[in-house]
Amino acid sequence: VILKILGCNGAIPAYGRFPTCQVIELAAEFIMIDCGEGAQMQLQKYDVRSSRIKHVCISHMHGDHYFGLIGWLTTQALLGREKPVYIYAPAALKNVINIQLDYALPYEVFYTDLIEGQTQILFENDKLEIFAFPVDHSLPTHGFRISEKFKKRVLLPEKISAYQIPKYFLSALAEGKDYESMDGRTVANELVTSNGKPSIIYSYSADTAYCESIIPFIENSNVLYHEATYLSDDLEKATKRKHSTATQAATIAKMAEVKQLIVGHYSSKYEDVTVVHEEAKSIFENCDFALEGKVWEVR
Amino acid sequence: VILKILGCNGAIPAYGRFPTCQVIELAAEFIMIDCGEGAQMQLQKYDVRSSRIKHVCISHMHGDHYFGLIGWLTTQALLGREKPVYIYAPAALKNVINIQLDYALPYEVFYTDLIEGQTQILFENDKLEIFAFPVDHSLPTHGFRISEKFKKRVLLPEKISAYQIPKYFLSALAEGKDYESMDGRTVANELVTSNGKPSIIYSYSADTAYCESIIPFIENSNVLYHEATYLSDDLEKATKRKHSTATQAATIAKMAEVKQLIVGHYSSKYEDVTVVHEEAKSIFENCDFALEGKVWEVR
Repeated sequence: VILKILGCNGAIPAYGRFPTCQVIELAAEFIMIDCGEGAQMQLQKYDVRSSRIKHVCISHMHGDHYFGLIGWLTTQALLGREKPVYIYAPAALKNVINIQLDYALPYEVFYTDLIEGQTQILFENDKLEIFAFPVDHSLPTHGFRISEKFKKRVLLPEKISAYQIPKYFLSALAEGKDYESMDGRTVANELVTSNGKPSIIYSYSADTAYCESIIPFIENSNVLYHEATYLSDDLEKATKRKHSTATQAATIAKMAEVKQLIVGHYSSKYEDVTVVHEEAKSIFENCDFALEGKVWEVR
Repeated sequence: VILKILGCNGAIPAYGRFPTCQVIELAAEFIMIDCGEGAQMQLQKYDVRSSRIKHVCISHMHGDHYFGLIGWLTTQALLGREKPVYIYAPAALKNVINIQLDYALPYEVFYTDLIEGQTQILFENDKLEIFAFPVDHSLPTHGFRISEKFKKRVLLPEKISAYQIPKYFLSALAEGKDYESMDGRTVANELVTSNGKPSIIYSYSADTAYCESIIPFIENSNVLYHEATYLSDDLEKATKRKHSTATQAATIAKMAEVKQLIVGHYSSKYEDVTVVHEEAKSIFENCDFALEGKVWEVR
């Protein structure tokens, strides 16, 4: 998975930090998660080819997570895009977009409504799944998990032996192929292998209060991006505004046994966001922090 | 007048150039003209105190001229603004803003609708006037003229002599004061002076095809900002899309006898916009070109 941050700040942009937007590349799919104001300029600045983005996940209807979408969609139209865009967002977003379109887009837009409080598989093909899970914010909000599916199937040695599959075919089995022998006998792949575990999981926990109920959905992620709007000395404010502290973000990362945590969605009160990073790191060692233009690549 | 450019590009942002937005300070009023996406970040970056902006003029309903307004308005709310905002814009803008507000703003917003094809005085006090005039674009669009009114009244020597106004009072007359003599005789200022000409006029001609009908509204401007989306070798494209070439912008400036021309609203095809400047300058000598962060001060 390749993760690129285009915007990492909270509600008010500050110190050159833009509202939330990031782009994920996994299994040949390009996914934009949230699309705060200025996203199209940031995509340009940080050399993302916008035309490759097919999926757009909007976590909730606070402006710092979607005000950039109409600009991106119309610029894609002006640039002659023909490929469709798939938008996964609260139902209200459709109206916001449509009222601002003064001409028909030259490409199709498919909306999938995020349902309050529910988990949903938003997209899946044979390599990738995009999954939404509810978090706890001041209005209906979802986090997202993007995982590579079944990269290699798990070989079942006893079954392989019983069905007499020759050794030279084992790597093909792992790729999901059925076996066919010289004499015409066919062995379905499912008989001798089981589903592999996702090899890469990226999870994004959008604006949320401390919320242990998300742990089953994000556990074992290779990378968890979790909001950390405040330091612990603002715990009361964080709780009231349904945001998390750096300590809370790190605690969730620890309990979910993720491999790496990235904190972001900083309050505009922090000029130097390394204070947020340091607080999180003191709880969860393998922690990094988001900034515009930063890229993580996990293989 | 102080003019600061926050965004000067055409429909598609390019090469670090943002969609249209600029701020004018004149006679203690702060006026934002157009508010393309990213305006709030640009205002921060270039040290404009957003809270001082009272008037917002939106020339037309193409997104590159208004997509930044909702973000600016909501951030002003988050920052605790209490002072009202006056918005002069096509009637449709109200709906676009209102559908995106998920809470009441803590300050009042007063809308004045720009009427298609009409001139309008949008605001006036004793020092300043904001005036809208129609231009020629692919949907109803207005330019704006911002002028300081009657800075000094013009003394009428014959009248002054006839009414026996003493010399020591002449500067007070120029300030608009009535004369009162020792013996109680009062002479109304209007009897011995006439309206002064505006001392500073700033004109902004938004997206428009070549349009001589605007000349009466912008003549003698100290500064004219005129769109120059294309070079002359794209005259056909400019005409079709209802935009101007640099040559056309400069021709308008010349015919209107403005003191200075600033070109902007560049097509995203130009990486180096000095080519646009050079073409305009060959027709109209006192010509400069807009870029993000540039400031002009005219006293």
